[in-house]
Amino acid sequence: MTSVSTFNPPIRTLMGPGPSDVSPRVLEALSRPTIGHLDPRFVEMMEEVKGLLQSAFQTNNTMTMPVSAPGSAGMESCFANLVEPGDKVIVCQNGVFGGRMKENVIRCGGEAVMVEDAWGTVVDPAKVEDALKANPDAKILAFVHAETSTGAQSDAATLCKLAQDHDCMTIVDAVTSLGGTPVLVDEWGVDAIYSGTQKCLSCVPGLSPVSFSDKALDVIKNRESPVQSWFLDLNLVMGYWGSGAQRTYHHTAPVNSLYALHESLRILQEEGLENAWARHEKNHQALKAGLEAMGIGFIVKDGDRLPQLNAVTVPEGVDEAAVRKALLEDFNLEIGAGLGALAGKVWRIGLMGHASNQKNVMLCLSALEAVLGQMKAPISKGVALDAAMAVYA
Amino acid sequence: MTSVSTFNPPIRTLMGPGPSDVSPRVLEALSRPTIGHLDPRFVEMMEEVKGLLQSAFQTNNTMTMPVSAPGSAGMESCFANLVEPGDKVIVCQNGVFGGRMKENVIRCGGEAVMVEDAWGTVVDPAKVEDALKANPDAKILAFVHAETSTGAQSDAATLCKLAQDHDCMTIVDAVTSLGGTPVLVDEWGVDAIYSGTQKCLSCVPGLSPVSFSDKALDVIKNRESPVQSWFLDLNLVMGYWGSGAQRTYHHTAPVNSLYALHESLRILQEEGLENAWARHEKNHQALKAGLEAMGIGFIVKDGDRLPQLNAVTVPEGVDEAAVRKALLEDFNLEIGAGLGALAGKVWRIGLMGHASNQKNVMLCLSALEAVLGQMKAPISKGVALDAAMAVYA
Repeated sequence: MTSVSTFNPPIRTLMGPGPSDVSPRVLEALSRPTIGHLDPRFVEMMEEVKGLLQSAFQTNNTMTMPVSAPGSAGMESCFANLVEPGDKVIVCQNGVFGGRMKENVIRCGGEAVMVEDAWGTVVDPAKVEDALKANPDAKILAFVHAETSTGAQSDAATLCKLAQDHDCMTIVDAVTSLGGTPVLVDEWGVDAIYSGTQKCLSCVPGLSPVSFSDKALDVIKNRESPVQSWFLDLNLVMGYWGSGAQRTYHHTAPVNSLYALHESLRILQEEGLENAWARHEKNHQALKAGLEAMGIGFIVKDGDRLPQLNAVTVPEGVDEAAVRKALLEDFNLEIGAGLGALAGKVWRIGLMGHASNQKNVMLCLSALEAVLGQMKAPISKGVALDAAMAVYA
Repeated sequence: MTSVSTFNPPIRTLMGPGPSDVSPRVLEALSRPTIGHLDPRFVEMMEEVKGLLQSAFQTNNTMTMPVSAPGSAGMESCFANLVEPGDKVIVCQNGVFGGRMKENVIRCGGEAVMVEDAWGTVVDPAKVEDALKANPDAKILAFVHAETSTGAQSDAATLCKLAQDHDCMTIVDAVTSLGGTPVLVDEWGVDAIYSGTQKCLSCVPGLSPVSFSDKALDVIKNRESPVQSWFLDLNLVMGYWGSGAQRTYHHTAPVNSLYALHESLRILQEEGLENAWARHEKNHQALKAGLEAMGIGFIVKDGDRLPQLNAVTVPEGVDEAAVRKALLEDFNLEIGAGLGALAGKVWRIGLMGHASNQKNVMLCLSALEAVLGQMKAPISKGVALDAAMAVYA
């Protein structure tokens, strides 16, 4: 093939559903010299990553570590390790990612009992309780804490309590919530949880932090059938990520990405979890004030919204893809499209991690007003910025 | 937890079984600003990565792309997509990774028919032919081209021809060979092949280049049962990595790691495949001359050796782990331990990609001589460097 030039990416502002803007500190750490995945110095760093992840997840679970692949593999790690053929799993679906959970259950040979809620609403605890009562043989309750496709935040504490009351384990999707809103693994009593690095941790995409309770580990160690994935089998992965100085080779860890995760977790530790949550909430309030002043509404009702993922309705008659294209080309600003049933109907505006700041809120509001103005969209002009600034005052 | 300091890795020379030294050009590309995984500019870069990988694999296969996870996941991608429950797979084992292939077959519900050869020898085509004759219902022949655990290079052309003669598909492990010795996917007629980025491509670890023939894709599209892994299901992955401008979200690609792969493949293109193969061979000859002058022998017989992975016998009475520790602590030099049946008996000295150069050969020989001298090991001193230099003369 002909000679290929080096790739110089444009400098975007990433306000989609992830990846979010990565801090220069994290990018610099990423590019430090590669060392071996069994180097004693690397093993020391792995221990720090585990400790920092325990803090982020608010857990003492010893099996807390990053899977060496994106969030979808983190999801699969939870299901492939805990679900055996014939196992019944109650899966809550209120968006795209509950559907992906169902796919995982089926591909593991399990039976998925679905609890459906409308996209844009939270998981209804009453329906979950009914499903738990109707299925006393269910082994696992699986739900999405932060539905990235809709921006709805379900009540994880209540859902986990219901599962425990019915002697059911839990698998929780916290891909978009970790670092942005409270994720309290021990307080909630979660058995298996997975997240992603490219959302509110503002790290590069490609890793999936997970945490498993001791009870979950017991179940995994005592499976009747082998885990169907060799790569994700925790019985093997534990030899590499487990405790102690002696590490057994399983796969070659993504060394540099782990440098980046280490640095991004340090940034979270420096800010403090509570401060990070408060910052995400403040910037969400400002964006919301500006968008609503403009006449753009949210698809999730107030109180159920994720501050880091704002799914808003495309104004009547507007070509949503043309708006995203103009934002990208003229402002280097990325916002997200709708997924699945919401494709073409909503935008998803992320305020995640490093990207959740006042500058980005103001950029997004002004760029959106400018682009929609050019398209003669039915919005109120000249009011969004004042409304947002009032929140910061 | 207490405050954690930023991680500054030591500057190692990586001459183990991988990761190998990463070029500063690749590390710099890695740290360029993150953009979205559906950004039109990123999609353009993806197309270039596919083209560069086609060149590296010497194939026109349209389904040539990097799996978003390490080589073990690339292996699993080949087996999980091609093996259905009940399928018979002939698996050649002459080291650790053939055993991992067997594990993959079993976990996919397949039946593994093993063809065993001694560790350190190549796969015996006569035994493979016997197995193919004895198992006319076998669907796939799987073998490791470059056995990273022993440094043996099997005759992929002959093995693939045998498979074709018996109407059998092929899965080939080229983790350590790609970029270091000839990997000729189309000429050999391979159906599915996987590699890693952290060996002779000298990229950071975490990605696994794969290539599938059109015949393999047909088989995958027409499976009776769904692929058991959602994350690795090529029917879904093709929507993101397939041709055309329209990309469907499947998982969030590891954007920055792909910048790095792009740059490392550009470096390979600039050098030229044949030149890279010749460089690996030359440096291997020099290292071999030096080691043999010192009295250190290879476990693989001449002619069957991988130039990029030198498995050598630990001298009598020497504590091999103490030698590796001294090399690491005193010279910042990493070499590899033996794996599996060879643990404690051999060292694995890599000369892969960017790390395959004269400076590293001389460093390794002089450091090894110094450390072994300190330990009063039974080696010939003062002769290795001259022997190696004679090869470069």
